[in-house]
Amino acid sequence: MPRYKLTIEYDGTPYAGWQRQSGLPTVQTAIETAITRFCGSAVTITTAGRTDAGVHAIAQIAHVDLQKEWQCEKVRNALNAHLIQAKEIISILRVEKVEQNFDARFSALRRHYRYRILNRPSPPTLDAQYVWWVLRRLDAEKMHEAAQKLVGYHDFTTFRAAHCQAKSPLRTLERLDVRQNEEWIEIHASARSFLHTQIRSFAGSLAEVGWGHWNADDLEAALKARNRACCGVVAPPQGLCLIRVDYTV
Amino acid sequence: MPRYKLTIEYDGTPYAGWQRQSGLPTVQTAIETAITRFCGSAVTITTAGRTDAGVHAIAQIAHVDLQKEWQCEKVRNALNAHLIQAKEIISILRVEKVEQNFDARFSALRRHYRYRILNRPSPPTLDAQYVWWVLRRLDAEKMHEAAQKLVGYHDFTTFRAAHCQAKSPLRTLERLDVRQNEEWIEIHASARSFLHTQIRSFAGSLAEVGWGHWNADDLEAALKARNRACCGVVAPPQGLCLIRVDYTV
Repeated sequence: MPRYKLTIEYDGTPYAGWQRQSGLPTVQTAIETAITRFCGSAVTITTAGRTDAGVHAIAQIAHVDLQKEWQCEKVRNALNAHLIQAKEIISILRVEKVEQNFDARFSALRRHYRYRILNRPSPPTLDAQYVWWVLRRLDAEKMHEAAQKLVGYHDFTTFRAAHCQAKSPLRTLERLDVRQNEEWIEIHASARSFLHTQIRSFAGSLAEVGWGHWNADDLEAALKARNRACCGVVAPPQGLCLIRVDYTV
Repeated sequence: MPRYKLTIEYDGTPYAGWQRQSGLPTVQTAIETAITRFCGSAVTITTAGRTDAGVHAIAQIAHVDLQKEWQCEKVRNALNAHLIQAKEIISILRVEKVEQNFDARFSALRRHYRYRILNRPSPPTLDAQYVWWVLRRLDAEKMHEAAQKLVGYHDFTTFRAAHCQAKSPLRTLERLDVRQNEEWIEIHASARSFLHTQIRSFAGSLAEVGWGHWNADDLEAALKARNRACCGVVAPPQGLCLIRVDYTV
């Protein structure tokens, strides 16, 4: 069966996350339904990143095996037509035919996420569903400095949800940058894979540094404690967006 | 009575435009209601640009006279609190005390608008309410070139709504730039003042050029016809945003 790679953009606001859940609207369910309407048979898609409820993506990757060969553009246009008809806020940006050894989840070398904060006294309007609104002034330079303590190979127990299902809390964080542009603060995080709510836990703990509640050593101590209770606030999902997945193939 | 200048951001999606209309949600009504809740008396605010239904603003300007002196930050925070409580998508970015000779409408030297087009085969998601989605490929360079035919002092009858209430169709268009960044095309328009739906009429007519239906001479002929029937398609409101107003004082 020919395998197709899908590049997907979505507004996570109305969805209970990526993963199929009985009775709840999810991104996976919406796309699988669109594929079934297109090709007539039930399918299961595999993804690079099972984003949480309310988290967005501008280049999520998934793969699916279809029973016959299709022109890639035709698949993209048909799926988008079905998604629009179902009033989903999901868009198939690209469809590519790939080899059988391509796996959206296991072939992924690196996931890149962006967390956006709007740091100003006035509430957000146009971007309300895409940022964490933080009224109290944050020091983004101090956040960036402290963030470097988290980069590398660590036990990230402090920064993963209690119900995280990963077998190991050990991960290599390749990048955790904090950049400011006027009222906007962006956190860029890259790693082969992340634990459950890891980036939102980073963002909230970095905010503790930005507010001056913590310094870089406090953040390092929280990491070393390997204790979920030592995490700072957990930042809300709407600021998070999956922005890229790297593959070798 | 002390006069205050308000800098306002809003998502125009749920509003029937800026201007107060009996029985309809408008930006003006929402802000006047918030001010009344704050200071206890009825007020009327004056604005730089009476944006249409569905049009957004990131720096709309208005002025209001209040019965007593207030600290500017206190006014801003109180109005935002009332706006949040009323679930409006309107944010007061700044409040400044100004002289009596400042008039948000008549002191304005120049209004700057941005019109955004998403030009790709796949539908928008995160920005669906803030762009005009155009599937067919547009040539932005040709659009920019043709746009220069409209810059200057002209009778813009072709590009104003039939129900436009301005006394004269004569305006000086100072700038009409079309720029492309990957799938995004932005039109930047600046003038002392604009006619009703003038920028959306420009955007749609420039799209006719971008699609290859018209060339620059056709656009000029449409202008010279001074006939509304010669306008191209009128672009939808959600791509339009008031981005700045210039004042001398």
